[in-house]
Amino acid sequence: MSPKITTELLKQLRQVMKNPRYVQEPVQAYIVPSGDAHQSEYIAPCDCRRAFISGFDGSAGTAIVTEQHAAMWTDGRYFLQAAHQMDSNWTLMKMGLKDTPTQEDWLVSVLPEGSKVGVDPFIIPADQWKRMSKALRSAGHDLVPVKENLIDTIWTDCPQRPCKPLITLDLSYTGVSWRDKIVALRSKMSERKVMWFVVTALDEVAWLFNLRGFDVEYNPVFFAYAVIGMNTIRLFIDGDRMMDPAVREHLQLDSTLEPEFKIQVMPYGSILSELQAVGAGLSPKEKVWLSDKASYALTEAIPKAYRYLTPYTPICIAKAVKNAAETEGMRRAHIKDAVALCELFNWLEKEVPKGTVTEILAADKAEEFRSQQKDFVELSFATISSTGPNGAIIHYKPVPETNRTLSVNEIYLLDSGAQYKDGTTDVTRTMHFGTPSAYEKECFTYVLKGHIAVSAAIFPNGTKGHLLDSFARSALWDCGLDYLHGTGHGVGSFLNVHEGPCGISYKTFADEPLEAGMIVSDEPGYYEDGSFGIRIENVVLVIPAETKYNFKNRGSLTFEPLTLVPIQTKMIDVNLLTEKERNWVNEYHGKCREVVGAELERQGRHEALRWLLRETEPLARVQ
Amino acid sequence: MSPKITTELLKQLRQVMKNPRYVQEPVQAYIVPSGDAHQSEYIAPCDCRRAFISGFDGSAGTAIVTEQHAAMWTDGRYFLQAAHQMDSNWTLMKMGLKDTPTQEDWLVSVLPEGSKVGVDPFIIPADQWKRMSKALRSAGHDLVPVKENLIDTIWTDCPQRPCKPLITLDLSYTGVSWRDKIVALRSKMSERKVMWFVVTALDEVAWLFNLRGFDVEYNPVFFAYAVIGMNTIRLFIDGDRMMDPAVREHLQLDSTLEPEFKIQVMPYGSILSELQAVGAGLSPKEKVWLSDKASYALTEAIPKAYRYLTPYTPICIAKAVKNAAETEGMRRAHIKDAVALCELFNWLEKEVPKGTVTEILAADKAEEFRSQQKDFVELSFATISSTGPNGAIIHYKPVPETNRTLSVNEIYLLDSGAQYKDGTTDVTRTMHFGTPSAYEKECFTYVLKGHIAVSAAIFPNGTKGHLLDSFARSALWDCGLDYLHGTGHGVGSFLNVHEGPCGISYKTFADEPLEAGMIVSDEPGYYEDGSFGIRIENVVLVIPAETKYNFKNRGSLTFEPLTLVPIQTKMIDVNLLTEKERNWVNEYHGKCREVVGAELERQGRHEALRWLLRETEPLARVQ
Repeated sequence: MSPKITTELLKQLRQVMKNPRYVQEPVQAYIVPSGDAHQSEYIAPCDCRRAFISGFDGSAGTAIVTEQHAAMWTDGRYFLQAAHQMDSNWTLMKMGLKDTPTQEDWLVSVLPEGSKVGVDPFIIPADQWKRMSKALRSAGHDLVPVKENLIDTIWTDCPQRPCKPLITLDLSYTGVSWRDKIVALRSKMSERKVMWFVVTALDEVAWLFNLRGFDVEYNPVFFAYAVIGMNTIRLFIDGDRMMDPAVREHLQLDSTLEPEFKIQVMPYGSILSELQAVGAGLSPKEKVWLSDKASYALTEAIPKAYRYLTPYTPICIAKAVKNAAETEGMRRAHIKDAVALCELFNWLEKEVPKGTVTEILAADKAEEFRSQQKDFVELSFATISSTGPNGAIIHYKPVPETNRTLSVNEIYLLDSGAQYKDGTTDVTRTMHFGTPSAYEKECFTYVLKGHIAVSAAIFPNGTKGHLLDSFARSALWDCGLDYLHGTGHGVGSFLNVHEGPCGISYKTFADEPLEAGMIVSDEPGYYEDGSFGIRIENVVLVIPAETKYNFKNRGSLTFEPLTLVPIQTKMIDVNLLTEKERNWVNEYHGKCREVVGAELERQGRHEALRWLLRETEPLARVQ
Repeated sequence: MSPKITTELLKQLRQVMKNPRYVQEPVQAYIVPSGDAHQSEYIAPCDCRRAFISGFDGSAGTAIVTEQHAAMWTDGRYFLQAAHQMDSNWTLMKMGLKDTPTQEDWLVSVLPEGSKVGVDPFIIPADQWKRMSKALRSAGHDLVPVKENLIDTIWTDCPQRPCKPLITLDLSYTGVSWRDKIVALRSKMSERKVMWFVVTALDEVAWLFNLRGFDVEYNPVFFAYAVIGMNTIRLFIDGDRMMDPAVREHLQLDSTLEPEFKIQVMPYGSILSELQAVGAGLSPKEKVWLSDKASYALTEAIPKAYRYLTPYTPICIAKAVKNAAETEGMRRAHIKDAVALCELFNWLEKEVPKGTVTEILAADKAEEFRSQQKDFVELSFATISSTGPNGAIIHYKPVPETNRTLSVNEIYLLDSGAQYKDGTTDVTRTMHFGTPSAYEKECFTYVLKGHIAVSAAIFPNGTKGHLLDSFARSALWDCGLDYLHGTGHGVGSFLNVHEGPCGISYKTFADEPLEAGMIVSDEPGYYEDGSFGIRIENVVLVIPAETKYNFKNRGSLTFEPLTLVPIQTKMIDVNLLTEKERNWVNEYHGKCREVVGAELERQGRHEALRWLLRETEPLARVQ
């Protein structure tokens, strides 16, 4: 990997930072955040501005360019990568290290008195703006919104913003019509006494209208905003996608509808002026509901006294609780996904000993098997296919430079998933195609114990997921082992593979309580730097539990695994399992056999079926 | 309990709210918070202003009086008590219920436009002031500081502020001299580049100077502030306590000292003017460190740009990590405390069947046995002595109206502790003096399993205590049971029985990481309303653990119980324990026998020793 040469680009950027065509007054510093205007985790190529200016293309990082300096803030996952990808024009700011200044402190230390710091108001979330603006102001500087994105002005070969056709989802997938979702949303708005709700997150727009798109890789979303009033629906979206008869029919654009369900379609770019018009026309007590992560530009469109900001929107919360149709869809998707993985692992078992299977080939093969399944759309994230020491790099993605060949001497970790029209999958299995060492088995078994501790946990209704995180670590902790990531994240239903507002992580406190119908991942791991990585991940559904005393009618919850892929028993040291844990494994494998076995049979995949049957033999009791 | 008649008092208060002798402009509302000027949990009688004006004397509550209304905000623990203690002039605002307005919202709803809301700036913490002031301002009102406390102006028989003699603690108790504590504090100040540190919490002043006092019941503290500069030490304290030769000697007030260790003693009441003088004399970049819970009055004395506020002060954090002398003192204190409780339980076992022992008598008897122990000072909190249904009231304190007689048919819960010159204790045991039911044993055993799960937990160095909270609940959760309080709190060393910055509670996220030397309680419980309460509490010391892999040299921690009082085996359903748990109980009881047995022997308490030996018989393995 050679670094991107950025000398010329930085020179150009510094010129436009002073060019009155783009800035009202010259700015002495310009901030280039990671995100897009919707604060998406995954972004389209046209939004990869920070990667363009610096060369560093990790998922998280903020660039700041001043007249003299160029600095990049990123976290521990990316120190090495950023150092490799950036040339000597750039200073790497290692977040989380004691001596690394915050962006604000650094700016204050390098800027001349009374400086202006520019940022694209559409890219920076309102809460970040507030923090940074305050810090700069107290040091005599100003954070100023620069309407035209300065990177875009110098990015001559910037890709077009994607504008791909949409697909519509009928009730058999969504369970609830978009009309009913609007009704429910308006009822939440009434409860909170707000008159308007602004939908800014892409997955929230997609969910609300039961539409999906392909504008961003892995996330079936499309660029759009929506503004929902008590009597109006405005959808801001570009292109001729609204010409598609299926979409018109789905949204009933040409039908005679009650006015409050009539969707007004408007250009994507008109959101700001429309929202400003809404803001200008508000009477006292008419509040507008926005996510506190919405962009500064849109938040500012509403006068402060009229804003109602919350960390999680009512759509985010409603979307997290899957209904029966969505749950059934997720079950179907996971069965198909399991079929693909049985095929893959059976294939790997035969091919790996030949020494011809690389990480990339294995990832491609996984995609190939998945794509054979009904309603397959695309992958749900970049496949982590890693063997030996690469497995210890938690966010590894094989590229030609690092591509390692699978062997019978190393642990192989595959973290992968797909988007099917009926659901989203995300599964990690750790396999050994030879004979694992006692130490590898020991570590694997502790991880498995942690996985089971969460999956089988029983807890009162209303418990926040972060309270379960330690259950996943207890067995590892007992032996002085740990892993430095959270245990689980919310999973969308044919939507983003990472979604809020629930999860299982010691890092979060503000997650929403778990309730029946929510879907999260359960993925403890253990990583030995330079040697191997282990992770066992199922997607699990929150379901009511049966308990003896039922928390005085508060209700009991537990998890049901949706993922039904065998956990390699060869890796388990059965002596370390309790009887309860052994029974859990056997029951889990029994269900894999029954459910996935039937589907393999139905699809005539007899070799993979034989593999499944062999891999799901019950664990014997140890004497 | 009949309510306090407050008609006349409220009339008087409303008069002074308009009296130019006390207020610059009339205030339309006056807030009476719970606390004192040091934000203490336990307060002196002269600070019980909210109880004086309303009659409600629970530990938490805020009163607000307007021209027409008088309202009291308190939480679920006190709904019943507050309703009983207040007359019809008062409206009870039940915090935590959905329809209860916040104080700010309520004020906005009842006040005429442009109102002034008064509060004593010494009693309200700066962070609360900020929140309330902002909310009121945005509704067109003003929060104003009223220098003279208006309750004090009408409280004709207000008790004097206590000003009791101090006791000095030598190195054998404290391990570190006050001089060395000042040196360590100044080094922390240098690290953070602050020039001044203001000590506002009473236990922090006491700890810093190795002094103790008796101004507040149960907490061995005294009314004082301190302001530490890089070259100066100012102690603000009243009375002739500084005339005591032992105190003068201890603080070296009459010695020739390097100027930076010379303590300037100043009147308690002069803190504000002295701090204002400090604030006025600051040069740029000279910061002043304060707790963000310090009073608004003191915080305001320092211009905003010079303030350095943190949730936990360096003293709070240093105080939490006990040194060898403190740890040994805590061990000694807990052995003596165990001797007293062995005597008590032996006595109860004989007396309860006679039907003559009430909750109050049992509590008195516990105090009597404790007071026989060396270096006993006072109790560390009001004894919770509760039998049968009273045990389900978590913060119960027996009073004549509720005083119940212990019997062989009910569970008895005793949560009690003492201050010894060498340490602070806090222990809960739940006993049955007859034959417990299978259900009572079942619940007790789940609580015990939770207690053991925390006590025996192994975790990496730097883990926050709140991450261990779920371990205490897991066994209860499995059966659909739970308890609605945290699992543990920090414990001082001959200081406050509740102290920060660490603890074990799902309610807190901002606790400081656990490290070796910290001391917390481990006290899961189960409460069946109207029937019984169960709690098992030990005070435990964080110690290094031996683990196989030691977290890649990050270090492993676990707990050592300091409390050494038998856990009633009669209450345990041994069938529900794992072998590991059974071994834990047997080892714990083995240690009680060995350590407390030796002390009982030494003190010639043979009957209590026989009781101890019988109560610590090992649990037999179940077939």
